[in-house]
Amino acid sequence: MDQIPMHLGVSHFSTPAVAVEGLQEALLQNDTFYGPTEGTMSLRQAVAKRYLEEDGIPLPESQVLITAGAKHAIHLYLQSLLQPQDQVVMLAPYWFAFPDLISLSGGELVSIPANPQEGYALPLEALKAAITPQTKLLILSNPGNPTGKVYTQEELQKVAHLLEEHPNLHVLSDEIYDGLQYETPPFSMLRFEHLRDRISVVNGFSKSFAMSGWRVGYLIAPFEILERATALQLKTISGVSPLTQAAAVQAMEHRQQIWQSFKEDLAPKRQRVQEALAQIPALSYTTPDAGYYFTLDVSACLQEMNSNSLYKTVEEWASGLKNQVGLEVLPATNMGMPGAVRMSFALPDHILESALLRLKAFVI
Amino acid sequence: MDQIPMHLGVSHFSTPAVAVEGLQEALLQNDTFYGPTEGTMSLRQAVAKRYLEEDGIPLPESQVLITAGAKHAIHLYLQSLLQPQDQVVMLAPYWFAFPDLISLSGGELVSIPANPQEGYALPLEALKAAITPQTKLLILSNPGNPTGKVYTQEELQKVAHLLEEHPNLHVLSDEIYDGLQYETPPFSMLRFEHLRDRISVVNGFSKSFAMSGWRVGYLIAPFEILERATALQLKTISGVSPLTQAAAVQAMEHRQQIWQSFKEDLAPKRQRVQEALAQIPALSYTTPDAGYYFTLDVSACLQEMNSNSLYKTVEEWASGLKNQVGLEVLPATNMGMPGAVRMSFALPDHILESALLRLKAFVI
Repeated sequence: MDQIPMHLGVSHFSTPAVAVEGLQEALLQNDTFYGPTEGTMSLRQAVAKRYLEEDGIPLPESQVLITAGAKHAIHLYLQSLLQPQDQVVMLAPYWFAFPDLISLSGGELVSIPANPQEGYALPLEALKAAITPQTKLLILSNPGNPTGKVYTQEELQKVAHLLEEHPNLHVLSDEIYDGLQYETPPFSMLRFEHLRDRISVVNGFSKSFAMSGWRVGYLIAPFEILERATALQLKTISGVSPLTQAAAVQAMEHRQQIWQSFKEDLAPKRQRVQEALAQIPALSYTTPDAGYYFTLDVSACLQEMNSNSLYKTVEEWASGLKNQVGLEVLPATNMGMPGAVRMSFALPDHILESALLRLKAFVI
Repeated sequence: MDQIPMHLGVSHFSTPAVAVEGLQEALLQNDTFYGPTEGTMSLRQAVAKRYLEEDGIPLPESQVLITAGAKHAIHLYLQSLLQPQDQVVMLAPYWFAFPDLISLSGGELVSIPANPQEGYALPLEALKAAITPQTKLLILSNPGNPTGKVYTQEELQKVAHLLEEHPNLHVLSDEIYDGLQYETPPFSMLRFEHLRDRISVVNGFSKSFAMSGWRVGYLIAPFEILERATALQLKTISGVSPLTQAAAVQAMEHRQQIWQSFKEDLAPKRQRVQEALAQIPALSYTTPDAGYYFTLDVSACLQEMNSNSLYKTVEEWASGLKNQVGLEVLPATNMGMPGAVRMSFALPDHILESALLRLKAFVI
């Protein structure tokens, strides 16, 4: 049977034409030589302009480092901040790449589960209890990956209070799914200006601009950290291609129309998945506020809760789903949420319909 | 006065049209999504084909990792090979980025000077004396940067013997200026097939394909090292853009005509620089076998040897050159050759002529 890839972290959208035109213009101008390590001035300015226009935050372009994708931005940041044995607190489920990135920089992950029954609301008390003198960093994805949770301003205010109470604590806010929210736009952590010496943001073009193959991301960080990150970028990769950055500039300048068109496609799909899941009571889920994933709790389909089940673990369940009905989803075990899977709905309509039929046939 | 940039590690050539066409074709095919961490199959195959056709080396494409430039390939390699306190032997002068890359991976640089009076010939006895049980790696640039030295097959045979005598010693051969030799093509270290479990090659598209802004390089390494390098690439940058790789494929396929056209431009320029330097006896130099740099020993222009000189150090001399006649060259102090500078001649003819006049006026 053909396989439907609902496990991928990439949408079915092609890169917007305006971005390709940005590249073509750069080629016409022969912009094929090494660029600055920090990134091109035009992309750093476009990023700063975005935060000014969307969030009302005056941000000097000198505080923006362009990186080889958002993962690379996180890597440079963690290498520049962490010392061995520093503790890093994250809310689970989290993006699966974080644990390796943290341990590569010598940090120790402390995972705090957020409750799906409460819509993955910020678990303030658990967070407070987890923060010790060894805690150097809190990583927050907003919108969440895989949860699609958009934190309210009130929740983020609580995070800001945590920073006020713990003067050595930093926050890295991963905002790479911003723009793809269905209702309230996410509130960037950068808005807490009085804490800007300890607040950093990572973002990029792979998700909300459908530019995963262009490898452009960025880091906004306090100057001291940014300088170290820039020095490390210089030592290890020199810098990012000015050609792909020229494409990213145009994407950023046209972000509102790009986000609008993506959401017009994704919103009815999110609705369709909800309707289909409502008919599969064994799978519990939370409707994402943003992005294109559902996180499904499949524990009611495993042997521990269902003695008729053939599957002991979520990995076995996902293998069964793949082998029997050709549907690929991503077990969330390494996202800190055993018993759950991440399922993307960023697929063409007819494929999504087939996927939902297959899921229902497999589970019921 | 206008500044003439002879300090840069980049030529005046634009990226070849065939490479740009490779990118255009990939855009038409919508190849804008994440590619494989290892690199695209077509680029890995094109690299393998190059080594088969140029060097007669059968190389499985699975032994090729595509990286975000050659510097990144070196970084991934050193991170995958070195343990803290491992010694790394290099012949000086060497590429200025190596010391930082080595120390970032915990290695200790042991620098062995090669003698310009002997044309930077391989100093075998000094090398032998430098290799201890702590020596993990010998790094060789062939063609040399900044020297432009192409090692003879006999010299490389001696390196192979060193490996035979020291069963824990590895070699990294930096071959990024290959293709730009004026006479005998460099002999790739990969030809020593019986030592392939300890021989690695780094190469890329920035120099001999004029694609510095595309950020594509590659590492050819023993499988065990390559696996670690690939895992680290996955953790830190996911992979390289399939778009820029598509351009690199076409460049590689058309390498002979590209190299030919670059050398037809560079060879008379090398000749002109030689003629001009012959009239400036205070600057001693060796004519490069490959590439587009002259390494000039300027110590006869410094105070220690010339009491009339205004300049104590090569940095002061280079500043004087820049400020008085608008000529930028690169002091070789951090290339392990104090008293020398690196000077590129990859410039348009009329600019090169002006540069040579300025140099003569300044020195004489």
